[in-house]
Amino acid sequence: MASIDLNSDLGESYGVWKLGDDQAMLGVVTSANVACGFHGGDPSTLRAVCAGAVAHQVSIGAQVSYPDLVGFGRRFIDIDPRELRDAVLYQLGALDAFAQVAGAEITYVKPHGALYHATVGDAAQAEAVVAAAAEYDPSLAVLGAPASCLLRGADAAGLEPVPEAFADRAYLPDGRLVPRSEPGAVLTDPAAVAARAVRLAVDHEVVAVDGAIVRVPARSLCVHGDTPGAVELARAVRDALDDAGVALHPFTA
Amino acid sequence: MASIDLNSDLGESYGVWKLGDDQAMLGVVTSANVACGFHGGDPSTLRAVCAGAVAHQVSIGAQVSYPDLVGFGRRFIDIDPRELRDAVLYQLGALDAFAQVAGAEITYVKPHGALYHATVGDAAQAEAVVAAAAEYDPSLAVLGAPASCLLRGADAAGLEPVPEAFADRAYLPDGRLVPRSEPGAVLTDPAAVAARAVRLAVDHEVVAVDGAIVRVPARSLCVHGDTPGAVELARAVRDALDDAGVALHPFTA
Amino acid sequence: MASIDLNSDLGESYGVWKLGDDQAMLGVVTSANVACGFHGGDPSTLRAVCAGAVAHQVSIGAQVSYPDLVGFGRRFIDIDPRELRDAVLYQLGALDAFAQVAGAEITYVKPHGALYHATVGDAAQAEAVVAAAAEYDPSLAVLGAPASCLLRGADAAGLEPVPEAFADRAYLPDGRLVPRSEPGAVLTDPAAVAARAVRLAVDHEVVAVDGAIVRVPARSLCVHGDTPGAVELARAVRDALDDAGVALHPFTA
Amino acid sequence: MASIDLNSDLGESYGVWKLGDDQAMLGVVTSANVACGFHGGDPSTLRAVCAGAVAHQVSIGAQVSYPDLVGFGRRFIDIDPRELRDAVLYQLGALDAFAQVAGAEITYVKPHGALYHATVGDAAQAEAVVAAAAEYDPSLAVLGAPASCLLRGADAAGLEPVPEAFADRAYLPDGRLVPRSEPGAVLTDPAAVAARAVRLAVDHEVVAVDGAIVRVPARSLCVHGDTPGAVELARAVRDALDDAGVALHPFTA
Repeated sequence: MASIDLNSDLGESYGVWKLGDDQAMLGVVTSANVACGFHGGDPSTLRAVCAGAVAHQVSIGAQVSYPDLVGFGRRFIDIDPRELRDAVLYQLGALDAFAQVAGAEITYVKPHGALYHATVGDAAQAEAVVAAAAEYDPSLAVLGAPASCLLRGADAAGLEPVPEAFADRAYLPDGRLVPRSEPGAVLTDPAAVAARAVRLAVDHEVVAVDGAIVRVPARSLCVHGDTPGAVELARAVRDALDDAGVALHPFTA
Repeated sequence: MASIDLNSDLGESYGVWKLGDDQAMLGVVTSANVACGFHGGDPSTLRAVCAGAVAHQVSIGAQVSYPDLVGFGRRFIDIDPRELRDAVLYQLGALDAFAQVAGAEITYVKPHGALYHATVGDAAQAEAVVAAAAEYDPSLAVLGAPASCLLRGADAAGLEPVPEAFADRAYLPDGRLVPRSEPGAVLTDPAAVAARAVRLAVDHEVVAVDGAIVRVPARSLCVHGDTPGAVELARAVRDALDDAGVALHPFTA
Repeated sequence: MASIDLNSDLGESYGVWKLGDDQAMLGVVTSANVACGFHGGDPSTLRAVCAGAVAHQVSIGAQVSYPDLVGFGRRFIDIDPRELRDAVLYQLGALDAFAQVAGAEITYVKPHGALYHATVGDAAQAEAVVAAAAEYDPSLAVLGAPASCLLRGADAAGLEPVPEAFADRAYLPDGRLVPRSEPGAVLTDPAAVAARAVRLAVDHEVVAVDGAIVRVPARSLCVHGDTPGAVELARAVRDALDDAGVALHPFTA
Repeated sequence: MASIDLNSDLGESYGVWKLGDDQAMLGVVTSANVACGFHGGDPSTLRAVCAGAVAHQVSIGAQVSYPDLVGFGRRFIDIDPRELRDAVLYQLGALDAFAQVAGAEITYVKPHGALYHATVGDAAQAEAVVAAAAEYDPSLAVLGAPASCLLRGADAAGLEPVPEAFADRAYLPDGRLVPRSEPGAVLTDPAAVAARAVRLAVDHEVVAVDGAIVRVPARSLCVHGDTPGAVELARAVRDALDDAGVALHPFTA
C-alpha cells in the first residue's frame, strides 16, 4: 500500500501580521514546517502552531531561514558558513522549546525560501545547515529537494535525507521545477493538482511540461498554506490521496 | 566552611560589536548569565561562550531580556504577560541549543536589565518569566534580587529561588540598592569591593550607607564584566574569597 | 459651511505581510498617517503609499512609533526622552524622503499605538515627539487626542495642534473614549457611525454612552483601515459627510 | 597646489555598543561617511556625529547599507533592485534629518561593506543606489571605487562620481586592491601609509605589490576609524599631507 507525507510551511505570521490559516492546515497535513522567527514566526505564533500540531498528531519540523524579516527569507545572503550553522542552531533550539512544552519535539529540518534554493547547489551552506542539525540531534531528518547538496550532505552526515515533490508545480523533463517566473509554473486547478499528487504518491512520477514522464522519488509532498484557496487545494490533495487508498502519515513516524 | 557563587553577565557582544572579555571572565566566575539574542548575543557569540563555560566548568544560565537590541534591554516594555512568557521560552530554547552542543545544558534563568528591575515588583511579568522556566524545565533555578516578585514566584512554582548580592553596590539600610543615579552608588576600589564580597559570603551581611549592618541572604554574588577594569575587579573579588577560605562553586552544583 | 478632515493609518504592511488596503483608503481619506518603518512600513510600502497619496491629493503625515515591529508599536516602552526624540526624528526624515520623491512633503506628525496613548499623559514623551517635529520642520502640525500633553506641547512649541475624534468609538461623558476592553466600545453599524461623523463635523459634538452630549472640538476624524469592512465603513462616513454638505479637505491645506 | 579629501566611516556604534572614536576622527577627516541605521548607527549616534561634523566643518555623506545589523552589512544580500533603491532612499532621508537639524545636509552617498563591493561589478545594484540618490537630490555626489559600476552609473545619471583610494591597502598592478585575505594586504606602518597618502594626493599614483607604479585618479582617501591605532594612523596621514602642502578639504566643497 502506498503512503506519503504532506508538509506545509506554517507559523509564518509575525505579531499583528497574519499569514495563512495554520490551524486549518494542521487538519490537512502530516508534517508542519514551522517558522523559527528569522523570516517570520513570533514566539506566541510558534506556541500556537506547536500546540496545534500536537493536537492534530502532526510532526513538527524546523523551517530555518536566513535572518531576514523584511525580505521574508527570500533574499539570498552570503553568510559565512560557520555563522549560518550557528544561526540555524539558534533556530532549532528556539522552536524545539515550543515543541517540547507542547509535548513533542522537532523531528526534522527544512530550509526556507532563499536558503532552500541556495542549499540545492551551494555545498558550503548546505553543510552548514546539516552540521547544525547533526550536532543538535542526529536523529533529525532533513527535508528538501531531491538530488540537492542538502540531502547529499544529510546522508553523508548520517542524517535521514527526505526528498519532497510539489503537486502544484510544473516539472522540467530533467526533474527540476519550472521557474516561477515562467508561465504555467504553478498549477491551480484542484482536480489536476490532486491527480498529480496521487500519481506522485503511488507511482513516484509526474508528467513534465513536454509530456515526458519524470521519476520523482519523493517521500513527502509540499502543499502551500499562504495563498488564496490554499486550504481548499490542500484539502483536495488530501481527499484524493485518501480516496486512492494512499496512507498519509509523517515521514518521521 | 562558607561557600558562594560568582555570576556575571556574558555573551553580550553582537556581531562586530564586542562587549566585555567573556573568556577572561569565564576564568573567574562560577556561573555565566549568557545573553540569548534579545538584548545582545548573536548566535556565534552564544556558541563561543557556552563552549568556554564548559571548558571552565562554569554553570550556564539564560539571561533573558525584552526584545530590545537598540536599547540593550534596558528599557521597560509593557508587554502582555503571555507574550513575555513566550519570548522568554524562545530564548531559553535558543541558548540551550548552544549549551547542549557544548556538552552541558542551561541550569538557571536570570532576567536582564529592565526585565530584572521590572520583575522585582511586577508580579505579572515575574510570573511570566517563571512560567516559561517552569514549563521548559522545572529543574531550572531562578537567580534574582532577594525578596523580589521573581523569587517569590519561582518558589511558588516549585523552582529554586537563588538570591544574589552585589559587592560593588552601595546598600540602603532596608536592603535595597542605592540607585545608580545617586553618588556613591557604585564602588570601584578593588580592596573595598573584595572585602565586602568576603563579608557577604561569610557573614551574609553588608554595611549600608548609613553604617547599619544589613543582612543579605545571597547565595551568589554578581560581578560585572563589561566595564573598564571589570576583569581585574572580579579577579580581586575571587582572590579575596579564595584567601578567606570561601569555597567557590556554582549554586546549581 | 462645515468642513472636516478624514485621517487613517496607512502604510502598515511589512514585506510579505499585508495590512489593510492602502490604495482603496487613499480614495476615501484626506490625510494619510503613514507608518515610518518602526512598527510597520517597509521602504517599498512607504514609496507606494506616498505616491498614491499624491495621486489622490491626500496629505502625508508621519505616523511615528516606538521601535517595536514584533509588537506593532502597541507596547509602551520606557525610552529615554532624548532617545525617543532621536528615534522620531529618524522616522520623520525617512518618510519624508518618500514624500519628497513623490512630489510632496510630510505635513504633520501623529504618534502610533502605545506612543499615541503615552503622549496623552506623559509630558516627557510628548515633548520628545514635539521636539523632533519642531526641529525638523516647525511648519509641521501635530495630530492627536484633544486635551493631551501632546497637543499642549505642540502648542507651546509653536506647532499647530490638531485634535481628532473617532466616529466609531463610544465616548464617556467627560470626553474620553470608552476603553476597547469594554463592551460597546467600538461601533460597527455604518449608518450609526456615519451619523456620528456628520454630527461631529457639523456640530462638534457626540452622544456619550450615558446619553449626555459631549463637545468634541475635532478638526479631523480618524477612520480605521485595517479591519474587515474598514474601507466600506470609511466610505460610508465619507458619503454621509458629502451628502450633509461637509467639505472634506486636509487640515494642513 | 595639490588638494585631497580624507573620508572615514563614522557613526557605526549601536546603542550600548561603541565602535571607533567618532569625535576624534572628526578632527582629522574632511568627509564623514555616516552610517544610517541599517548596519549600525542608532538615531542618537547619528545626531552626535552630524553635530560633530558640523562643528568640525566636515562634510556629511550617507554610508548606506544592506539591512543587516547582525552581519554589520558585510554580507552580500541578493535584494531586488527596486527594494534596494527604496532601502537606500529610506536611509538617505533618515540621516539627512540629523544633518539638517545640525545645520547641514548630506552631500554624498557611499555604499558600505558588502554593498560597496557588490556595486563595483553588479550594475543592477549599483543603479539602484544611484537611482535613490538621483531622485532624492541630484546634487549628491557618489563616492566609491574607481572604474566601478557605481561611479559609471553615477556619471550616467548626472551625479558627480568621486573615486577614492586607500593609503593603507596594497594595490595590484591593475589598480585593484590586494584582497584582505592575502598577507600584506593592509599596511600598518604610519610612516609608510603617510608617504603613500602624499604620493596619491600629489602624483595620483601608488606603488603596487610588484613594484609597478599604478595611476590612481582618486579625489578622496579613505582612512579607517574603527581599528586599534586608527586615530593615530589617520592623524599621521593628515599631518604628512599638511607637511607636503596638500590642501585638505571636502570634495563636495
